[in-house]
Amino acid sequence: MKPAICEKFGIDFPLFAFSHCRDVVAAVTNAGGFGVLGGTAFTPEQLDKELSWIDEQVGGKPYGLDLIVPATYEGKGEKITSSDLAARIPDDVRGYIADVLAAHDIEADPKPFAGGSSLAGTTGRELLEAAMSHPIKLIANALGVPPDYMIEAGKANGIPVAALVGAKEHAVKQVAAGVDLIVAQGTEAGGHCGEVTTMVLVPEVIEAIDGAVPVLAAGGIVTGRQMAAAVAMGADGAWTGSVWLTTEEAETAPYTVQKFLAASSRDTIRSAGRTGKPARQLKSDWTDAWLPNDGGHKPLPLPLQSMVAEPVIRRVDMLAAQGHQGAQALATYFVGQGVGLMNKVKPAREVVREFIEDYLAATERLSNSLPD
Amino acid sequence: MKPAICEKFGIDFPLFAFSHCRDVVAAVTNAGGFGVLGGTAFTPEQLDKELSWIDEQVGGKPYGLDLIVPATYEGKGEKITSSDLAARIPDDVRGYIADVLAAHDIEADPKPFAGGSSLAGTTGRELLEAAMSHPIKLIANALGVPPDYMIEAGKANGIPVAALVGAKEHAVKQVAAGVDLIVAQGTEAGGHCGEVTTMVLVPEVIEAIDGAVPVLAAGGIVTGRQMAAAVAMGADGAWTGSVWLTTEEAETAPYTVQKFLAASSRDTIRSAGRTGKPARQLKSDWTDAWLPNDGGHKPLPLPLQSMVAEPVIRRVDMLAAQGHQGAQALATYFVGQGVGLMNKVKPAREVVREFIEDYLAATERLSNSLPD
Repeated sequence: MKPAICEKFGIDFPLFAFSHCRDVVAAVTNAGGFGVLGGTAFTPEQLDKELSWIDEQVGGKPYGLDLIVPATYEGKGEKITSSDLAARIPDDVRGYIADVLAAHDIEADPKPFAGGSSLAGTTGRELLEAAMSHPIKLIANALGVPPDYMIEAGKANGIPVAALVGAKEHAVKQVAAGVDLIVAQGTEAGGHCGEVTTMVLVPEVIEAIDGAVPVLAAGGIVTGRQMAAAVAMGADGAWTGSVWLTTEEAETAPYTVQKFLAASSRDTIRSAGRTGKPARQLKSDWTDAWLPNDGGHKPLPLPLQSMVAEPVIRRVDMLAAQGHQGAQALATYFVGQGVGLMNKVKPAREVVREFIEDYLAATERLSNSLPD
Repeated sequence: MKPAICEKFGIDFPLFAFSHCRDVVAAVTNAGGFGVLGGTAFTPEQLDKELSWIDEQVGGKPYGLDLIVPATYEGKGEKITSSDLAARIPDDVRGYIADVLAAHDIEADPKPFAGGSSLAGTTGRELLEAAMSHPIKLIANALGVPPDYMIEAGKANGIPVAALVGAKEHAVKQVAAGVDLIVAQGTEAGGHCGEVTTMVLVPEVIEAIDGAVPVLAAGGIVTGRQMAAAVAMGADGAWTGSVWLTTEEAETAPYTVQKFLAASSRDTIRSAGRTGKPARQLKSDWTDAWLPNDGGHKPLPLPLQSMVAEPVIRRVDMLAAQGHQGAQALATYFVGQGVGLMNKVKPAREVVREFIEDYLAATERLSNSLPD
């Protein structure tokens, strides 16, 4: 008999893989796990195309879609435009960023805030509508309680809705709001994260929601032994992200892959310098620039910080890939502390296989730890 | 057959319990675990008395001693006196602390730096000598590489020496220095801690030292399911501290116990406001006062900060226990994020029993998670 979570999602192994790259999503799903496409950065048309490609690859096997829809910002019925938001950016920030770039031999962009960021652009509602013509088997919201339209779309179409939480209090709220799956994500996770670690958060969330919905553990999990640890604590499976960034399929820039392979777990920082909310990423001169305590600027609130940061980061990434030293010192990328255990580029299918083997070995190790 | 770690230490269950309270140490040892007395706050005479009491209680069962000896500060053969150190305390700090206290209706102590702190007072060498007439079965050093005299005393007397580490690089150094046991302690731990979480640090350390010595997992572990998680990841057992603070035997002040029972995992902070090095403790107006980014003062380096902080904290604790509201807002205590799972006062023996049951249940849960 399969575990309940595997029955529910039609999978062999409860390893959920978040990736912005469709190839990773398809490879994990085809290997018996569950791929989840990060869809926020796409236009609705692009998303439709990505999902069509996945549909062709997976032959009916299950996969999901992850969006970042902050309910507090988009939930009120009014659509805030990028230019409304741009007007809220304090003047001194432009000069500050120009200074940071100049110190790294990079010219400031004359119109740095023209393009909205993903958080300030397309709404989640439009992306969700584009996804509904595809056989998605999970809708995940990575930031706060999902907006009502997302929960309603899930219920209307029989698609479970998942929410990522960084505190047990948030898990309780999410369950009350009607989500079907909780991803308890510790502070070691890449991207937006809270302060509580996976080792404490997972049992705390499981205790707090008392079996109302399944719980996946996230944060720092890049090996099967860590996934087994989470299941030993009562989780139904694992939600992973960082580990796919160094797979052969990932579209991670070669320069960034090298940074990941070289990084230790202490090379990440929980910084608001990219989106305005604390998000774990590689330490760099950019994250240093947003440490007010050490002479940096205070980050703007979400989504303003991403409006000022993302266009700069995109240029920096491009220059870094070309070998520009100043840009290489500034370049950063969302990744969790598990980066310290990511030391080799592998095919995604191979990562799934290693997860399973390592999970089995960990299970045997724990069983053998008992006195006869 | 017992697991190797149990054979090595003569115990039934590889649960190591750090406590400043001899009753907890004896209770855990008598229940089949391994109690470790935190000895740093004692004089050599007091320590001798405490260990004699434990010897009477445990009837030959094994226990250990934990000291905090920063090698960088004490390793050079010269003995720095408290008054040498007091001269290094900047003048403005006296006024700042007086202001913080005044804002909480507490008068400043006219001679706040007269008494040295535990870190600046008795040396580890004197304490270790006092302990050597007792049958201790482990010497642990909680801060950095143990000084040579500690490793030599361990080797000369056949007593394993353990070191707490918060980074894999430190583990490698400790093994090279000759320690016999590594405690890999995640950032969620109470007291001094690094930035890497238990979920990432434990597999990282195990990989880095490659079986050279056994590894105990620490940080956030207050239940048997978390201990099982650590063992699934390859740890040989668990090192715990916070969970004993709310046992019946602990000498924790009743007011502090109530704070612990009420606290969630998000009520702790990694603050240098007490010792000068980041140490996890309950958030309070005192920890707020040492957040330079939010209008507080920058903490002094170790051991100066503990020289200014400990006498104040002692007075604050006394007043808080008497119901003084300002003191209650200032009061803090070292504890890990696991405090969120500590919700009931229990006898220490009962905590050990629950650890074992929960560990067994977690092992069964993990085994049953595999498809048939």
